[in-house]
Amino acid sequence: YGKNTIKFLRLHREGKKHFVKEVEVCTHLRLISAQEYLEGNNSLVIPTDTMKNIVLVLAKKNGIPTIEQFAIDICKHFMTTFCQVAYVKVYIQEAPWQRLHENGKPHVHAFISVPDGIRFCEAEQCRNGPLVVFGGIKDLKLMKTTQSGFEGFYKNEHTTLPERNDRILCGELFCKWSYGECKDFDFDCIWNKIRECILEAFAGAPDCGEYSPSYQKTVNSIQMFVLSKVSQVQVIELILNNVFYNVLDMKNLGLINDKEVLIPVETPYGSCACTLGRK
Amino acid sequence: YGKNTIKFLRLHREGKKHFVKEVEVCTHLRLISAQEYLEGNNSLVIPTDTMKNIVLVLAKKNGIPTIEQFAIDICKHFMTTFCQVAYVKVYIQEAPWQRLHENGKPHVHAFISVPDGIRFCEAEQCRNGPLVVFGGIKDLKLMKTTQSGFEGFYKNEHTTLPERNDRILCGELFCKWSYGECKDFDFDCIWNKIRECILEAFAGAPDCGEYSPSYQKTVNSIQMFVLSKVSQVQVIELILNNVFYNVLDMKNLGLINDKEVLIPVETPYGSCACTLGRK
Amino acid sequence: YGKNTIKFLRLHREGKKHFVKEVEVCTHLRLISAQEYLEGNNSLVIPTDTMKNIVLVLAKKNGIPTIEQFAIDICKHFMTTFCQVAYVKVYIQEAPWQRLHENGKPHVHAFISVPDGIRFCEAEQCRNGPLVVFGGIKDLKLMKTTQSGFEGFYKNEHTTLPERNDRILCGELFCKWSYGECKDFDFDCIWNKIRECILEAFAGAPDCGEYSPSYQKTVNSIQMFVLSKVSQVQVIELILNNVFYNVLDMKNLGLINDKEVLIPVETPYGSCACTLGRK
Amino acid sequence: YGKNTIKFLRLHREGKKHFVKEVEVCTHLRLISAQEYLEGNNSLVIPTDTMKNIVLVLAKKNGIPTIEQFAIDICKHFMTTFCQVAYVKVYIQEAPWQRLHENGKPHVHAFISVPDGIRFCEAEQCRNGPLVVFGGIKDLKLMKTTQSGFEGFYKNEHTTLPERNDRILCGELFCKWSYGECKDFDFDCIWNKIRECILEAFAGAPDCGEYSPSYQKTVNSIQMFVLSKVSQVQVIELILNNVFYNVLDMKNLGLINDKEVLIPVETPYGSCACTLGRK
Repeated sequence: YGKNTIKFLRLHREGKKHFVKEVEVCTHLRLISAQEYLEGNNSLVIPTDTMKNIVLVLAKKNGIPTIEQFAIDICKHFMTTFCQVAYVKVYIQEAPWQRLHENGKPHVHAFISVPDGIRFCEAEQCRNGPLVVFGGIKDLKLMKTTQSGFEGFYKNEHTTLPERNDRILCGELFCKWSYGECKDFDFDCIWNKIRECILEAFAGAPDCGEYSPSYQKTVNSIQMFVLSKVSQVQVIELILNNVFYNVLDMKNLGLINDKEVLIPVETPYGSCACTLGRK
Repeated sequence: YGKNTIKFLRLHREGKKHFVKEVEVCTHLRLISAQEYLEGNNSLVIPTDTMKNIVLVLAKKNGIPTIEQFAIDICKHFMTTFCQVAYVKVYIQEAPWQRLHENGKPHVHAFISVPDGIRFCEAEQCRNGPLVVFGGIKDLKLMKTTQSGFEGFYKNEHTTLPERNDRILCGELFCKWSYGECKDFDFDCIWNKIRECILEAFAGAPDCGEYSPSYQKTVNSIQMFVLSKVSQVQVIELILNNVFYNVLDMKNLGLINDKEVLIPVETPYGSCACTLGRK
Repeated sequence: YGKNTIKFLRLHREGKKHFVKEVEVCTHLRLISAQEYLEGNNSLVIPTDTMKNIVLVLAKKNGIPTIEQFAIDICKHFMTTFCQVAYVKVYIQEAPWQRLHENGKPHVHAFISVPDGIRFCEAEQCRNGPLVVFGGIKDLKLMKTTQSGFEGFYKNEHTTLPERNDRILCGELFCKWSYGECKDFDFDCIWNKIRECILEAFAGAPDCGEYSPSYQKTVNSIQMFVLSKVSQVQVIELILNNVFYNVLDMKNLGLINDKEVLIPVETPYGSCACTLGRK
Repeated sequence: YGKNTIKFLRLHREGKKHFVKEVEVCTHLRLISAQEYLEGNNSLVIPTDTMKNIVLVLAKKNGIPTIEQFAIDICKHFMTTFCQVAYVKVYIQEAPWQRLHENGKPHVHAFISVPDGIRFCEAEQCRNGPLVVFGGIKDLKLMKTTQSGFEGFYKNEHTTLPERNDRILCGELFCKWSYGECKDFDFDCIWNKIRECILEAFAGAPDCGEYSPSYQKTVNSIQMFVLSKVSQVQVIELILNNVFYNVLDMKNLGLINDKEVLIPVETPYGSCACTLGRK
């Protein structure tokens, strides 16, 4: 049980310069008891309202240097404060506020929301177990308009999909990775590096791209690239929900459509997920 | 990998009387191979487009007597047709069309959407494993305006919630149960019975209700009641996402608010989940 | 300017029997002044926070017999209390709570959300003008699986739609009507009657239905039927957003699909709107 | 009547470099006739399916240099092709694809979705009337963490809002402007300039900002600034839906909250709209 979507803004000021972190926190606990379910005995139950208070108090006292560090703080607080807690899990996502710039000059206190990939994290711990931290990015929509195909697949009497060696590849990406043993990571730096790795592995070189023979291979290539470039990542999970773009047949309208007009097919949509760890 | 939200309507006619099932199907497979991820070798990959075709062909050939039976049909088809499939999972939800009635008379071909609890199911199977079927209901919003409280809970310096013995209990319910070994169940009958059990256990007797000392106890009571009344259910999972209704303090407006005006607090919201099986 | 989505529950008790109205209120004003825009002079500005307080106070004091009556109360309050108000408009929609029934017996304090058509209303008034009240229903999803066609339409070189005399007609309906001079209407009774008229005009007789030659004609038929049956309605506006169901061509899958499997086309969707008044 | 959300991607290639415009088009017509409503006579009705075809054909033939130009093309086509059209209105919004950059280098065919303000436009024309074009931006979320207050407002017994001279100003902005007589505008250039004007007028100077005494004044300042800087704009409409950030009282948690932890209040939300033209 727990409290979901505890939303708040943590404002930090350094003179006239302001820094904002707006977050959404979910905190879930499992207790060592069952009496609250079986007998309605609430004596060990920490109200979800108290969970909310704790999150807000920690934000006020510690600030939010990174959402990952804040998730660790919350986990530790629950484990050390309440001996009836058997398991704690914290999820945090960050609102994508970016500092406004005017003619290249950063504004001291104005921000704009730029939701091009949402940063989130998780931290969880069982009593007597290690504290595990996950980083992540979601709602990242990417497209490449060529250098993608799908051929040589399995066929039977229910196959109607034609082979294609030049199609649009477009999808929404969800990526989550674990940090293994928690030391003093530079979470901001790692997150930015992983985001860059994802974009680079998805798109290929700026002048020519790189051919993708399937969603599966692209998913794997991104994972391999991140693992090779970012040593702190232990396990990486990737989900690619792909929107298919159908080249509209315009023959009955008297036109030849040379992949100029394409219709996005939002439902049904394909999905490809893979989890990859180090040996 | 798989195909999500394959939406279609299956129309069945008996003379002038029409019957509709509009469904949304998600089909996911895990193959025995890894070469499609590692090498871009697609030779064993069943395109998600083919999955969609198979779902539509089965719907056309077999009809959809119940979504549970249809999920079983799809699972079996993938397992028996494709030896490269290691695991198959099917999720189906049903659009809540109900036959229109005019002055009590059922209409032969007109329907209205009544989304008061969405019926869904899952079926999954590993190669050489049993086919497991789940039934479920989701998006069921219930409220009781008294006979609910929360007292005697754990308190410390972060507790600000007052004890209450008369509050509103309101939440959105998600319930999923497994059927164990799949025999010839009457899925329609069981689903309706479980829905009734949920409503009855939530609300209590029509003339007086039943006191709920916590969300946890209510969740457990519903589960126990379903298990006691419906022998086909093996394991039952329940999630109650609760909306808190805050009695507005109107003193600064010169009024005493005797639980007449209440403000729903949609974020953050509490959540309580429990899974219960038979011994 | 104004306040949107003021959500609250008004609970009314008669002994053990409870009655609920959960509403969402939007209140908008236009002032006689422009100085707040031009000079930042707020001296005539009624804060949107005060608007919210007023709505809650009126709900507490008067209750909500019907949302229409409550909208009228709010309008009148703003017009009579604030001489700087040039125009007021109130929109209210009602959460679709229905009393739970167990074996036909109504429950004293338990409710279920049944969103099969949302009731809403508007009231507006200009200073020195009449108070105009509108009733409405929205998000009403209806379907008929035959007795609908579309033939004889205008054709040119861009027409690819075939003529059809047996298709599915499915849509989401928005309907809003004005009551003209505001007397003591029985708003509950009228709203229910109009809802029934809409269903009846849409569906036709229960045993055979009625043929619809176009969305336009169906929209008009519903309007004419309401105007003929409900004398209090002065003007009626209707919008029908239709979802097209495409009969899937299964020839390439070796099957003949006799309108058994249909794919809903959610985007793009057609829309048909018409406003009709009395002479 | 018309067709809504006609979604498609227009791909344009110059050698290896690709350019994308993904749009959502809504096309609405009013005909000179009423017989389709009254008699079910469809002879003058242009099917919404044909409207969709026309939009796609024009995209294929003309491309989409800008959405504004494309809206004009569609309007003109309907007016000149169909003499039964009395009025045509076209709405287009553009998906926020931006070219990917790797280490500052633009990618030839990879794109990322960056929804920080959606560009849209409208064009409408009555038979024998002028073609009017509107540009717009919506879903633009902005925040400033100081230099905002609200004081000196009208007070009575329902006022509980305290005066504040240092609050957060945060809102979602909708802006739409008309271009007057349609000549050869550089729509891209103007749109970008207006967006910059909005940001600058909202935020003030980068090093100190500018004090906002109310949402009304900020709305007006933005409008005045756009009108002064962009001569092509005739009339400008602005709606600011503001999210209030409540400074959490943490006294009962033993803490003094110096505007460090703030809770966004998403419902109810205030709204402020104003339309301003040139003399």
